Amino acid sequence: MRRIDLASAGFLLLEKRETPMHVGGINLFTLPEDADEQEFLTSLRTLLRESTEFRKPFGEYVVTGKSGLFWEKDEHIDMDYHVRHSALPSPGRYRELFALASRLHTTLLDRTRPLWELHIIEGLQNRQFAVYNKIHHAAIDGVGAMHITQAMCSEEPDGSPSYAPYSREAYEVYKQARFGNAPRSADPSKRDLRNVLEALKQQYDSSINLATAMRRFGLAFVGRSGNLAVPWHNVPKTSINTRVSGARRFVAQTFAFDRVKAVCKAMDATVNDIVLAMCAGALRRYLLSRDELPLHSLKAMAPVSLREEGDVDSSNAIGFITADMATNVYDPEKRLRTIQESMRAGKDLLRELSPAEGALFMQLTQLPALLTSILGLGSKFPAFSTVVSNVPGPRKPLYWQGARLDGIYPASIVFDGFAMNITLVSYHDQLDFGIVACRRSMPQIQRIIDHLEDSLAELEIVAGISGSGPRASDNRRGSRTPTKGKARTIGKAKTRAKVKTKATTKTKAKAPAKSTTAAKTKATAKAKTKTKTQAKRPVRKAAVKPKLGTPDR
Amino acid sequence: MRRIDLASAGFLLLEKRETPMHVGGINLFTLPEDADEQEFLTSLRTLLRESTEFRKPFGEYVVTGKSGLFWEKDEHIDMDYHVRHSALPSPGRYRELFALASRLHTTLLDRTRPLWELHIIEGLQNRQFAVYNKIHHAAIDGVGAMHITQAMCSEEPDGSPSYAPYSREAYEVYKQARFGNAPRSADPSKRDLRNVLEALKQQYDSSINLATAMRRFGLAFVGRSGNLAVPWHNVPKTSINTRVSGARRFVAQTFAFDRVKAVCKAMDATVNDIVLAMCAGALRRYLLSRDELPLHSLKAMAPVSLREEGDVDSSNAIGFITADMATNVYDPEKRLRTIQESMRAGKDLLRELSPAEGALFMQLTQLPALLTSILGLGSKFPAFSTVVSNVPGPRKPLYWQGARLDGIYPASIVFDGFAMNITLVSYHDQLDFGIVACRRSMPQIQRIIDHLEDSLAELEIVAGISGSGPRASDNRRGSRTPTKGKARTIGKAKTRAKVKTKATTKTKAKAPAKSTTAAKTKATAKAKTKTKTQAKRPVRKAAVKPKLGTPDR
Repeated sequence: MRRIDLASAGFLLLEKRETPMHVGGINLFTLPEDADEQEFLTSLRTLLRESTEFRKPFGEYVVTGKSGLFWEKDEHIDMDYHVRHSALPSPGRYRELFALASRLHTTLLDRTRPLWELHIIEGLQNRQFAVYNKIHHAAIDGVGAMHITQAMCSEEPDGSPSYAPYSREAYEVYKQARFGNAPRSADPSKRDLRNVLEALKQQYDSSINLATAMRRFGLAFVGRSGNLAVPWHNVPKTSINTRVSGARRFVAQTFAFDRVKAVCKAMDATVNDIVLAMCAGALRRYLLSRDELPLHSLKAMAPVSLREEGDVDSSNAIGFITADMATNVYDPEKRLRTIQESMRAGKDLLRELSPAEGALFMQLTQLPALLTSILGLGSKFPAFSTVVSNVPGPRKPLYWQGARLDGIYPASIVFDGFAMNITLVSYHDQLDFGIVACRRSMPQIQRIIDHLEDSLAELEIVAGISGSGPRASDNRRGSRTPTKGKARTIGKAKTRAKVKTKATTKTKAKAPAKSTTAAKTKATAKAKTKTKTQAKRPVRKAAVKPKLGTPDR
Repeated sequence: MRRIDLASAGFLLLEKRETPMHVGGINLFTLPEDADEQEFLTSLRTLLRESTEFRKPFGEYVVTGKSGLFWEKDEHIDMDYHVRHSALPSPGRYRELFALASRLHTTLLDRTRPLWELHIIEGLQNRQFAVYNKIHHAAIDGVGAMHITQAMCSEEPDGSPSYAPYSREAYEVYKQARFGNAPRSADPSKRDLRNVLEALKQQYDSSINLATAMRRFGLAFVGRSGNLAVPWHNVPKTSINTRVSGARRFVAQTFAFDRVKAVCKAMDATVNDIVLAMCAGALRRYLLSRDELPLHSLKAMAPVSLREEGDVDSSNAIGFITADMATNVYDPEKRLRTIQESMRAGKDLLRELSPAEGALFMQLTQLPALLTSILGLGSKFPAFSTVVSNVPGPRKPLYWQGARLDGIYPASIVFDGFAMNITLVSYHDQLDFGIVACRRSMPQIQRIIDHLEDSLAELEIVAGISGSGPRASDNRRGSRTPTKGKARTIGKAKTRAKVKTKATTKTKAKAPAKSTTAAKTKATAKAKTKTKTQAKRPVRKAAVKPKLGTPDR
């Protein structure tokens, strides 16, 4: 038996049938050139099912002891249960893949077994196949999941490690190759803070940093801490911030990393800043199209890793920064700057803390979120508006038993109070977005994918990268951007029309309006038409690889 | 809002993540001769998704009111969520179908939506396709499910009703066609007993029958009520009677109805008696092969319909008789007679009661089961050993939009205390068995299917129908029974050897035994070998149609 640390146990305690607490996603592969699909997938399944030794806690299940939750070894692990073979109905487009992933991501993991499932999915077009992973968040966080993907794959097309992704062997080989014999996280007790009280005791002598941080955090609630955004404070209520139902929708899309990097360079911002700005723009567009853009800005929970370099072992080593998404700001550049400042303030707060202090700070400041969630008040007092999680992934193209890894599309958690989660992975020359939402509160998350593209294009204009590109409407008809890093653009006029209206009349667009709101009415009508024709619309030819984004409906 | 009656509400209240309370199963079809698979399945999906008016409660979801649970109309029903399209991975055998059905039957229904899912499954061999249904037991019982299957199908190969199975139209047309304007269940208040107290009040004046029944029920616990078997009393503990985990295994098999009928006639027994005897023989074989046959007989819960003729409306109108399965009786005929007597005693008890009194009696006598289940004591004090549910199905071959219905394989519920459920449907000239078990406690339910065949063959010998058939071992090598109604037989010698040993030494077979237990040791060894070689064994050529029963492993 091993005690489950508090951060991980939280995900077990918070789990309800409407809010499963597993993470995972779709890894997309292309079969090796000469491989027979059936033979190849059968050999993968055999490889996966033959594991007998697992990295922790993939061979363990949860038991409730007197003093908390523990991992206990499963002596009769049923690999046929964990490793599954599924298929897509024809025609086997991404649309069918997303529909299946949505269903698989909806159901709870079996608590009487090790908390993971792996599905090999056949039936995709163009010699692709997919792997859907589902792992309880108590067992892994985003960075940990990336370590696993990297451990199972090889940078060589003909590399074929003889171990399964969750095996102890994969873990040992990977750790050795990547971090060698360097001292890993110095003091295990620092990583594994059992509970707040014990941690407070440990920290007693060095708690000056922590006290300062707590004080600044508190001041933010009364608006006296500069640009620091904090949970709960002025978090508006939108349709994204409701109680969630038990079913999910999953969609995914790839963006060229070069496009984002070019904007970063021109705007003097980090990748994470630009990603948050893309999401902020997309959220603003989504809420505008639904006539529910709130006066207060949306706040995003942006997880940051508290992992020390070389720590492959921790299940959960994450902290959270609250990003002010500036969704109430019309100007894209000003919006970006506001986001940047709030992120900088959040990072400054964490930077002064040691990893252990950081973990403790997170526990203290997240405690109220735990409480509102347990009390079922998450939708009444949302701590955040949404989650935008940026996970650094492999920097080189990877291969699994010779099959090229085409994309890593993460699927994460939603819960009462925020019905949508945007997680992305940087992989080689692409940014792979995976969006999960409550199926009932957000029936049209496919539109967020479209808005992300619009939002990136807008940032490119601001950055002066493609100021005079074709209008969005031209682009819809199929004009193609041949070079990577260049993007289709959206007509500035359209954006302005929408926003100007908002500024003059304050979002309430249901009643038909006269002269001044004419532009808005048009914009709304356009949005509605778009929704209806979405399914039929010709596939957009953006510079993405592979082409994802077919709606899950 | 409509109040949910107590019997149905029980299934909602008892539900946990380890014990979902939905029923359903696989309906197997063959595509019409000239149909294109994709076109045909697409048109089915469209037909199903276009429903807007539903029979109750298929358009309603559960809300918790102050005085109990209620059905409330779902104004935004998401048909893409309920009607799903799935596929089997190649090679698309029944083995893959059972694996998928096992997974689908494992997961909980979403409580925030109408409590049903329907999956159209493509990818089977021989132009077959399957429909997996999943409906909460609060919404339907076995007989009700049969009404739905019959309502959606036609007896004419070219009949193609233009409504979906759960539509209000299907329900109205079917009710009219089958029962015309005959007065349906006379007094709705009699069917819908709200709670025990209210019912007691109603029954106050006519409660003599009930008091007599309760008294006899009570006497059975002290062995003074003849052949009446009652729950809890002398229910042995076996590996079937444990706490269940959250995952299921599903297997199915068809038996020729004529074979069972022939035994009925020869033995002067009902179909249900013979079915119970088949199950009893199978259970005895299963437990013997695991060296855990208990001294006390297993008890089976045999649901009986309390529906009045023409009642298509009730969600749950079931009572339960406790059948003494006589698993401790060596002689197959004596075993059958013991089962018959206990069923007769149970029926006599119910016969004296009016349907309303019957329902009340059920509520009173099942109350302790509800309590042990809620208290989590179901596995410590099992009320029954297993469930054997015999649902009368359509008597003529049916077609759905021209596709022939090849079989109706039900999948029901297991819970703490009984980890296996055997449900069967009589359809035309076949008996379709569907067995659901906890995946962890009963890893080899495929063997129950084999044992059912052995057990039926044994009864045929007793009935003198095929007394001198080939030995089981010969049969294994592939000798075939060409005519329907004739069966492969099992060597009597083998059965004797096993049982004689038991009689002399009382089952404890782990230590190697000397002279007298030699036969047993051999039998055990044989059983073990059988387990190991099961997967490789050539498919048995019994007179079944279609051939099911490939193990789900």
